[in-house]
Order: sequence, then C-alpha cells, then structure tokens
Amino acid sequence: MKLIRFGLPGEEKPGVVTEAGMFDVSAFGEDYGERFFETDGINRLQAWWNANGANCPRVAEGARLGAPIQRPSKIICIGLNYADHAKETNAPIPAEPIVFFKSTTALVGPNDDLVIPRNSVKTDWEVELAVIIGKKASYVEEKDALDYVAGYCLHNDYSERAFQIERGGQWVKGKSCDTFAPLGPWVATKDEIADVNNLRLWLTVNGKTMQDGNTSNFIFNVPFVVAYLSQFMTLLPGDVISTGTPAGVGLGMNPQVYLKAGDVIELGIDGLGTSKQKAVAYK
Amino acid sequence: MKLIRFGLPGEEKPGVVTEAGMFDVSAFGEDYGERFFETDGINRLQAWWNANGANCPRVAEGARLGAPIQRPSKIICIGLNYADHAKETNAPIPAEPIVFFKSTTALVGPNDDLVIPRNSVKTDWEVELAVIIGKKASYVEEKDALDYVAGYCLHNDYSERAFQIERGGQWVKGKSCDTFAPLGPWVATKDEIADVNNLRLWLTVNGKTMQDGNTSNFIFNVPFVVAYLSQFMTLLPGDVISTGTPAGVGLGMNPQVYLKAGDVIELGIDGLGTSKQKAVAYK
Repeated sequence: MKLIRFGLPGEEKPGVVTEAGMFDVSAFGEDYGERFFETDGINRLQAWWNANGANCPRVAEGARLGAPIQRPSKIICIGLNYADHAKETNAPIPAEPIVFFKSTTALVGPNDDLVIPRNSVKTDWEVELAVIIGKKASYVEEKDALDYVAGYCLHNDYSERAFQIERGGQWVKGKSCDTFAPLGPWVATKDEIADVNNLRLWLTVNGKTMQDGNTSNFIFNVPFVVAYLSQFMTLLPGDVISTGTPAGVGLGMNPQVYLKAGDVIELGIDGLGTSKQKAVAYK
Repeated sequence: MKLIRFGLPGEEKPGVVTEAGMFDVSAFGEDYGERFFETDGINRLQAWWNANGANCPRVAEGARLGAPIQRPSKIICIGLNYADHAKETNAPIPAEPIVFFKSTTALVGPNDDLVIPRNSVKTDWEVELAVIIGKKASYVEEKDALDYVAGYCLHNDYSERAFQIERGGQWVKGKSCDTFAPLGPWVATKDEIADVNNLRLWLTVNGKTMQDGNTSNFIFNVPFVVAYLSQFMTLLPGDVISTGTPAGVGLGMNPQVYLKAGDVIELGIDGLGTSKQKAVAYK
C-alpha cells in the first residue's frame, strides 16, 4: 500500500494511493502514528481496504498533502552515507555510521514551501531515502532488521550549512529549522519496494539536475543502519531514519550554491514518488 | 506548584507535592503533556487544586515516581556549559552553546534503575538543571525568554563516553540509551524558583561527592539558552532543555571512573529535590 495524509496542516486525514487515484480512509478510524504501526496497522488497514475500499471517497483534486505519518518520536539521520557525498564535502569515509537527530518540528508536507530561516545564507538540499520503523526495535540483528521496518518514504533533509558547521559543536542546529523536513508524498509499505538498496534518487533546483544517485551506493545499507542504531537507542513504531544523501549538494560545489527565495526544488526516488518545494523568505 | 507523575511505567497518573505530602490529581482529568502546558494548564490546575485539593487522595506510600512530564517532542541538551567541566574534558570554552539531542526513549522516573547498556564500558553521570518549556517558542528574544518557561526539573544526563566520543561523529549515540534520562522527582513551576541561575547542584556515587556546582557558573544562562535555541528550531510546550553539567564527571577524572552494576548514584538541586538510581547490568 501507499499511505498518504491530506488536508490542512494539523488537520490531516489518512488516505491511500492506488492506480485509480487518492482515496480518503478516515472511516478506518486511525491516523498513521505510533499506535497504528505498533498494532499491525498496515495489515489491518489492508484488510479493511479490501472490504471497504470501493466505498471510500476520492481525495479532492488539489488537496494539500501532509507528511504521510503523524509526528514521530524522533527523526534520526545518517551523515555521509554515500562515498561521493563524503568526498565532495572533504570528509573521510566514515568507519561506522554518523548519527544525528533532526527536530520533529521540522516536518512538513511534501509540497509545502521551504521557509529559509531568519539569518540564513547557506540553506542547502539533500534528497534522501527515509525508513519508517514498524515495530519497537532494541538490539536487533542485521539479519532480522527489515522485520522492524514498515516502509519507505522520500525526504529532503534541508540543512543550513552555517548553522550546522560554523556555529560550534553538533550538526542538529543546522538540521532542525521549521519546514526542513518535507516528507512524502507517501509511505510505500515494505512489500512495494523490491530492493530498497537499489533505488535511483534525484533532485533538481529550478529544473537543473543537482543530485542523481542510487541507494546501491550506500556505505551502510538499510538493514545495517537499523540494526546499528538499535544498539544505541530504542526505535519506536513510526520513527523516521533518513539514510543520507548522494553527491550534488550546494556545499560541495565550487563555488558553493545555496537556496534563495523563489527557487524551486524537485526530487524523487523510484517507487516513492516526487515532491516539490518552493523556497520563500522568513516573514 | 510541584508536579509529579506516579504509578507503573506507562500508566503514570498526575499528582502534586505540597508540604503535607503527595496527592493524586487524576480527577483534574489531564496528564502533564504538550496540550496541558500549551493551554495554560499550570494556572488551570492551580485553580482546580485551590477548589478541590482538600478532596484529593494521597499517593500511596512507596509508589513509584515516573518522569514528571509525558514524553516530550524533544530533549535538547547543552554541552560544556560550565567552565570547570569544559576544562576537565580538555575542551575549549564554547563561543556559543553546543547543542545536541537525547532520544526521548531514554526518559525514566527519578529513582528507576540505570541500565548499563550492552557493550558499555564508559557509562558516566551528569547532574543537570532541566528547563521545561511552557509555550511554543520561535525566534524569542532573551529578555522575553522566561515567559516561555513552565518550570524546572532535576535531570541526570547519563552518557556513554565510548559511544559518544569514540564511535564517530556526533554525540547523540552516547546519550540516548534506555534509562539514560531519569527526570524528576518533580517539575517546580517557575514561580517556585527565585533565581534559576543561582542553584546548587550535586551528585554522589556510592555516597562519595563527585559533583558540587552552582548554576551561577553557567557559561550561557537559562534565558540566553532558550532564546538561542529558538533561533534554530521551534520549542514546543513540554519540551526539555537540559542545561549542562558542572565538573566532576567520570570522564574528567585521572584515572577515569565509570559506573558498574551495583553502584548507587544520588543527585539533587536546590528546590528541585533529589533522585537516586542504582546501576544494573543489561539483561
């Protein structure tokens, strides 16, 4: 299944996408959050859909999409997980995953505006594959790790490079601004993606291709990352793990290129759809 | 007021502490979470308590205390915020706050066991003053920052130093293990604390004093930290900001000292009570 959430910010309703379009499944009675995933919600929804899908109303044309999950307990990101991106930022290939968090207040819908933060001069893009956790995971082994995954999602891990790198210490400062985590359009459940470690992902700015990579170039692949993280913290159903970005970010260019109001950013991953954000100034 | 939560893990009920003891305020009908704080819950509870407190049952003797707030959207920590602690870890005095996150799955009650994580050899302690946010805060000025604070709380920011420092990249890996964030016993509402930037805080291990500092030695004080963070991310009601630890952690000793199963850690802050954790091995 492909799960969406639609409606005004803070009032999103659950839906599904099929080849016939987008359908409202509010009548199922649950939103896509921690409780949904931890209580086998995907299978329950599939059974409900099989029985009731024909009666579900279509989502209105032009409806806004929200992030396709409710606010998770955490957004965990992997840094420098593609060799070409590590190289462009003059960083060594990491010996084990670099881990940082992004504030969940950064979450927005896939086509919402990117608000360039006040005092920002280095707002940058990062197309990433996001993993949605399906079951509580602690000390999981790599061979079992995909059992703990609910599905996958497109994510743009926006990053303010001055806040991240030039303001002392840890990266979270440059990763957590409002609108810095457009997620979606949909969560593709795990069964929809034949090989998560072989998906093309790309990003354009004003129509010009900036990133064009493939998850086959992960330094640490999805099962490894899930198992690894679970050695350090408990992953909860609905948690988001963003798996890093390939080469082609503004920081890696010579001269560096950063976003300005009016720029249009489009991105996509095989099987996970596309999203589009317009950069606007903070008001 | 002093807010507590009591009962089994995951089933905590709200209570208050007065000079007469601990009282169950379940009848108020709300737990201490994001919605409580954002809807002026402290003042509403105070009014309700004034009218109904005499009828509230006592909390049973020996009841377990949980963390005094529901799971927040984030736990933000400030690193190296006391000059003596920066010195003992051979770190320079930061020019601006060092910011990192701690997974909210680390939260436990103030007297719950500390579980030493699997494969840990460097589990360390850090007594800290935690700030509880009361109102959504974005781009707040320092002069107004305390308007966004609900209260204060005792926190032990347990840290696995090998995970934090020797495993590549960012600190969050060493800060997020289960049980690494005992919070409480209570949230003291802001009016209870005359000067948050002048409170003694201390910690003992097996009865021996390890840390004995005062928040008057903050490099960045509470209003500055709240205003600063709000430039980089939106703070939500119920969010926790842990403000850093004074000198005396195991990492700073020569030779270094780390916790082992059976150790007993006690800590306290003026006006915010004391807590006590026993270290146990992961099973």
